[in-house]
Amino acid sequence: MKYPLIIQNLIDQFSKLPSIGPKSAERLVFHLLYQPQNELHEFSQAIDHLKINVRQCQICFNFSESDPCYICSNPKRNKTIICVVAKPQDMAIIEKTGSFEGVYHILGGNINPLENISPQNIKIKELLIRIKNNGVKEIILALNPDMSGETTSLYLSKLIKQFPDIKITRLARGLPMGADLEYADEITLENALKDRKEL
Amino acid sequence: MKYPLIIQNLIDQFSKLPSIGPKSAERLVFHLLYQPQNELHEFSQAIDHLKINVRQCQICFNFSESDPCYICSNPKRNKTIICVVAKPQDMAIIEKTGSFEGVYHILGGNINPLENISPQNIKIKELLIRIKNNGVKEIILALNPDMSGETTSLYLSKLIKQFPDIKITRLARGLPMGADLEYADEITLENALKDRKEL
Repeated sequence: MKYPLIIQNLIDQFSKLPSIGPKSAERLVFHLLYQPQNELHEFSQAIDHLKINVRQCQICFNFSESDPCYICSNPKRNKTIICVVAKPQDMAIIEKTGSFEGVYHILGGNINPLENISPQNIKIKELLIRIKNNGVKEIILALNPDMSGETTSLYLSKLIKQFPDIKITRLARGLPMGADLEYADEITLENALKDRKEL
Repeated sequence: MKYPLIIQNLIDQFSKLPSIGPKSAERLVFHLLYQPQNELHEFSQAIDHLKINVRQCQICFNFSESDPCYICSNPKRNKTIICVVAKPQDMAIIEKTGSFEGVYHILGGNINPLENISPQNIKIKELLIRIKNNGVKEIILALNPDMSGETTSLYLSKLIKQFPDIKITRLARGLPMGADLEYADEITLENALKDRKEL
């Protein structure tokens, strides 16, 4: 036995979290052992109460204290434009720009056969129901420009094309702000050339 | 407001942990939001009960379910050899070799003026009391071969030299197993040459 059972148990719990290996988990647990009990209690309560006080919006699948969430229930948001994202964090980062006035749909992941995520595992059916029932005019596919994001975008755009009145768009590709042409990869540069804009 | 208060609160709690930034904390919290409540409850209980069931040994400052700890209370361990380490994890890794039969003393850190850790903040006084009261024959300084570890070793060896009967040693320096001479740094190689062993 390397550590007392109670310490090992918490190390195992931390190791279950994404991107935390057993070594990092050890370091976290020993850090906690040197903290006062009231801080540990606060941390523990925050975890225990997380899902009790937070619900998943049954329209867009965002996490919020209310259902529908604070975005779907906001009368100022334009319900005819839906921005489709993979994760709640992606939604938060778009919100931070302050330049989108529509609503969101959080898939909960991208299609990824390597990780056993098929179309049935993410909220695609629910997106189609939303499109069918409401006067949606545009779907923005804001998925990552990588293999699984592209697969999901392709899959979704094929499905949404059965509704001929709906415009389907995706985020623009090109050089990010502050980029250096010398270090840009070929595909980014190719995209930037292809979608060049007249001044 | 980027996230609901309850989510943001847990993100802040995770961000307090060492080597977890706000982005990683977000990812951890959203991972937890997709887990079942009973797993969250288990995790929360493990944190809350950590310090209640684990005590710090008042002899060596190891964490254990008993005080004295399972090593200090083991009659088979040689109490005349004390291995001084900075962290409980260092002790665990030495224990794993199975080749040390003495006892430990956990300082709880190294002297590091940059991080405001002075000799009074770590268990040096307690080490000297242990040495004074018992028939200690050897002190092994098993501290990291870096700036703060070396400082602490130097500081400790000066203090312990007031007890002329006690042998002070430190871990050997040299090439680690599996090393490639071509890629060894100069100081390691210098140490390996200086401490070369006759075959």
